[in-house]
Amino acid sequence: MRELWIELGERSYPIIIGDGLLNRLPQALSDRGMGTDGDLFIITDENIAPHYLSGLEAALKEQGYTVNSFVVPGGESSKSLKWYENIMTEAIQLGLDRKSVVIALGGGVVGDLAGFVAATYMRGVRFVQVPTTILAHDSSVGGKVAVNHPLAKNMIGAFHQPELVLYDTATLLTLSDREIRSGLAEVIKHGLIWDEAFLNWCDEHADALLKLDAESLSYALYRGCEVKASVVSQDEKEAGLRAILNLGHTIGHALEAVAGYGELLHGEAISIGMVGSARLAEELGYPATIVERTQSILERYGLPVRIPKHLDTDAIMAAMMRDKKFKSGQMNFVVPVEIGKVEIQTGISPTLVRSIVDDLKGEV
Amino acid sequence: MRELWIELGERSYPIIIGDGLLNRLPQALSDRGMGTDGDLFIITDENIAPHYLSGLEAALKEQGYTVNSFVVPGGESSKSLKWYENIMTEAIQLGLDRKSVVIALGGGVVGDLAGFVAATYMRGVRFVQVPTTILAHDSSVGGKVAVNHPLAKNMIGAFHQPELVLYDTATLLTLSDREIRSGLAEVIKHGLIWDEAFLNWCDEHADALLKLDAESLSYALYRGCEVKASVVSQDEKEAGLRAILNLGHTIGHALEAVAGYGELLHGEAISIGMVGSARLAEELGYPATIVERTQSILERYGLPVRIPKHLDTDAIMAAMMRDKKFKSGQMNFVVPVEIGKVEIQTGISPTLVRSIVDDLKGEV
Repeated sequence: MRELWIELGERSYPIIIGDGLLNRLPQALSDRGMGTDGDLFIITDENIAPHYLSGLEAALKEQGYTVNSFVVPGGESSKSLKWYENIMTEAIQLGLDRKSVVIALGGGVVGDLAGFVAATYMRGVRFVQVPTTILAHDSSVGGKVAVNHPLAKNMIGAFHQPELVLYDTATLLTLSDREIRSGLAEVIKHGLIWDEAFLNWCDEHADALLKLDAESLSYALYRGCEVKASVVSQDEKEAGLRAILNLGHTIGHALEAVAGYGELLHGEAISIGMVGSARLAEELGYPATIVERTQSILERYGLPVRIPKHLDTDAIMAAMMRDKKFKSGQMNFVVPVEIGKVEIQTGISPTLVRSIVDDLKGEV
Repeated sequence: MRELWIELGERSYPIIIGDGLLNRLPQALSDRGMGTDGDLFIITDENIAPHYLSGLEAALKEQGYTVNSFVVPGGESSKSLKWYENIMTEAIQLGLDRKSVVIALGGGVVGDLAGFVAATYMRGVRFVQVPTTILAHDSSVGGKVAVNHPLAKNMIGAFHQPELVLYDTATLLTLSDREIRSGLAEVIKHGLIWDEAFLNWCDEHADALLKLDAESLSYALYRGCEVKASVVSQDEKEAGLRAILNLGHTIGHALEAVAGYGELLHGEAISIGMVGSARLAEELGYPATIVERTQSILERYGLPVRIPKHLDTDAIMAAMMRDKKFKSGQMNFVVPVEIGKVEIQTGISPTLVRSIVDDLKGEV
């Protein structure tokens, strides 16, 4: 079992990672000052609920907790104002008060949605995350919570730190191969932006991680969270440094939008985006070895490194220009300047970006 | 012109109060670091817009600001998730980004709604309040923002401090007599809970305040904000002390709910509630002079001090028991223990409260 303390002054909290931890949730809640006087409200989705919900509820009730739960449909469409309102209605009807604790049991969608409920129910109640995907290691640090607007993702949200993150690596065994690879893309990203030694470790432990070896997975999630925490603790409200976490996300978000959410998983899209950023670095005069290293580790994890040919270049460019990071026509990019170090480069010409997009399609 | 600095660490902000200040908004924005690189988004209602919106927009545009506005219907019904979503849609379509500033031009409803938009648009943008009612002096301190849920008021919200509050007492001249009296009830409350000398001043200046004498009004708003700020700065997130601001609100909210919103204005309802709290204090052994003093100053301002006979006692009691302050069946009340000082009393018997409600109806 590993414990990582996210240092954010009075909003500090622990991330506890290990194999078979789910049944420790009652004790962990109690250790963090969330006793049985506060009602628990578990928010999960219909994919996760059949595996873990009834067991978790039983374990909590046995320790004297009052437990209610709300199950949303699986997938991104639940991260909407409509489901947010449905959950709020249920919370009010249940009579939940300010002592209540919202628990997110699931991946990033459930975490974001439940977190926004916790951030705004009665102006904020306590929040606990129980992630069940690898990708969620990324969203379990940073306090970003949100729902989507039909016109754009994550436009409605808040910063709301959890009191506790409990990460049971055993819950990851139900993930598909593709979800595992996609989730590990964010782990690799944390190596690329911050820590070459960790990237090397990821390279050496690729087989173990892809097989979900509990010990390797526990360390990878721990170190991924730790890197993100190092960045976030220096920039809690996203004023500057935090932007480096977006390596690969500018192209990645555009690909997700153009492909239609679901065709490319998030990690797959940012995998391609990270190769694009490395290509951009090369064009800007940084060593070509960055491209080779980025591409080889992603390929080792079976992640895509080229843009699917049927995606329209104009549409990809248009999606990037709409991205909130390109206000006022300026294009900013996070680019790797060496392995384990990135910088934000401003004033990138759209023509250059377009040539890289074309290139990433042509080389398939 | 008076300036009061609300001290909340890095979230500190000034409240500027004076006669004819509206045209100083461009300068005040600039002084607070909100330059023309951030788009302004004014949220107001259809009662206020005809008086001030076009003039304010023109003054801001003249100084180089990009200004957009959104007009909601007047009244409490605009403080809904539906209008919140409409405003979010407009903000996204306008392409507002994180540098944008949301300006609330109006009373408490507009302030709460616009504040919740500012708290959650792209996870939070800057917020400025331009209150146009006396009552809004109360909501301009404390950072509480919210929308209503059909099942209960203010259930969905956040804490989001403004960067600036600009209070032009000239905008109060369009208020009706009843709105003026109702607004002054919260001013009097601040005297009752915190400052006997200020209560005496309110007594002496009743005629001037009711006539909206600019100098008296400016001081009353200043001191009212200052009292509230003293309480809030010791308890920003409403953990304890801040509850004393609810003097009169427990009975008051129940009366508003039972009468149907609109029959009793908020200040009228809490006026009756404050007399009820004083009666409760008397029953608990505190001097009867508290009741006399409370009642006489409220009567002096033409505020109601008795519960309208047609309101059903059972319904009033039921509304109070539903109130979030009475979880677990315990009744807590803010009671005046002397003039200018209140305490939170727990374990009040519902039977005693009921006898006071009956009493307040019977003595009409």
